Amino acid sequence: MNLLLLQPKDFLGDGTAAISDQRCQHIVKVLRAKVGDTLKAGLLNGDIGNATITSLSSSSVTLSVALNTAPPAKLPLTLLLALPRPKMARRIIRAATELGVSEFILLNSYRVDKSYWQSPLLSDQALHSAMLEGLEQAGDTMLPTLSKAKLFKPFVEDTLPGLLHSRQGYLAHPYATAKCPSHIDQPSLLAVGPEGGFIPYEVEKLQATGLSGFSLGPRILKVETAVPTLIGKMFASI
Amino acid sequence: MNLLLLQPKDFLGDGTAAISDQRCQHIVKVLRAKVGDTLKAGLLNGDIGNATITSLSSSSVTLSVALNTAPPAKLPLTLLLALPRPKMARRIIRAATELGVSEFILLNSYRVDKSYWQSPLLSDQALHSAMLEGLEQAGDTMLPTLSKAKLFKPFVEDTLPGLLHSRQGYLAHPYATAKCPSHIDQPSLLAVGPEGGFIPYEVEKLQATGLSGFSLGPRILKVETAVPTLIGKMFASI
Repeated sequence: MNLLLLQPKDFLGDGTAAISDQRCQHIVKVLRAKVGDTLKAGLLNGDIGNATITSLSSSSVTLSVALNTAPPAKLPLTLLLALPRPKMARRIIRAATELGVSEFILLNSYRVDKSYWQSPLLSDQALHSAMLEGLEQAGDTMLPTLSKAKLFKPFVEDTLPGLLHSRQGYLAHPYATAKCPSHIDQPSLLAVGPEGGFIPYEVEKLQATGLSGFSLGPRILKVETAVPTLIGKMFASI
Repeated sequence: MNLLLLQPKDFLGDGTAAISDQRCQHIVKVLRAKVGDTLKAGLLNGDIGNATITSLSSSSVTLSVALNTAPPAKLPLTLLLALPRPKMARRIIRAATELGVSEFILLNSYRVDKSYWQSPLLSDQALHSAMLEGLEQAGDTMLPTLSKAKLFKPFVEDTLPGLLHSRQGYLAHPYATAKCPSHIDQPSLLAVGPEGGFIPYEVEKLQATGLSGFSLGPRILKVETAVPTLIGKMFASI
């Protein structure tokens, strides 16, 4: 945790905040902070700055908070991700949040195991907490949006075209011949398939809707390896 | 597993191989392959090609193997990695092997928990198996080398200068001002610190020995996120 992420309900007024949940445990047990110590802090979806501990017990911490700096810029990226295996999905979403992804859309695909959609690890609550972890790691406060598209064809036919009005669309696809784009600073949408890849029908539909296919080369990467590699390669600001 | 990785001891002669370990289980239970099916295969540190199943039971598979293609090129990268938490180290080494890293050196650092060096998850055997997994995933056969430098100062003073005779050295460091290099195709060494970073003394020593510091920007990434992001950004061939 490189940033203490505060929420409006933590504030008592007068720039004072009080917390008593696992963030308090982290401050007491992991950081071993003392009264007078200053931590980097931020308000969820707001500014970042400092929080100085004014009182502390094993179950509660109060802080004097001054937030006056904008959080780091987000990447102009919508990540359209075929729903990964639940444990991996959590890690990928946390990592992509660290990197500044603005928006996640989890998509069904032929090779996505249907049971994944019911996994408690992929509940809205669990994914929200993965994104909070990513923000706390990266020193960011701006929560990405996340939505789920449980039906491939209606999403691609009815929703994707609208998203592509204002975004350049890309499809990472091991068998494409184009090379990975780089130096991107414009709004973009990147589709990444499941382990084993999108099936040919899906690739065709996505490309027909306007996504440009490209490949990272002959190596087949796990999705959790591919996502940060792609983001590192593609975006100018990294 | 996108490539069946064979070892010299699996070969019976005449281009025939027999396996009866977890690779056999994978072929039977996960791939549900049948006699006559052809799999992508490769010889450890050798060529890649195809293997056709000639007989199969729940405990043994024999294959007719034809290997005549060079494996994908490695990245000209020596990754000098402050020893990560054991579970994470395994994932990072697997992922970096997928990406084609040629050489790993695991380095001690002030912020590395000493107990990590004793973890069974970081035994030579366990790390070897993480690298094999990365090769099988990526369709590669060339095993990276891996060594451990359990003393920071002697390594940096006595070993690192020799490595830098033939490699450009880089240090990923959140507080550096230079931007991440890109389009690299020359032999390189990249040092990545532990969670929390190298301490100032270590940064100074590494830079004095010839590593150029650079930063990926204001976001503090987990090491497991940073490594593929850095590799994606830095290398021309990705």
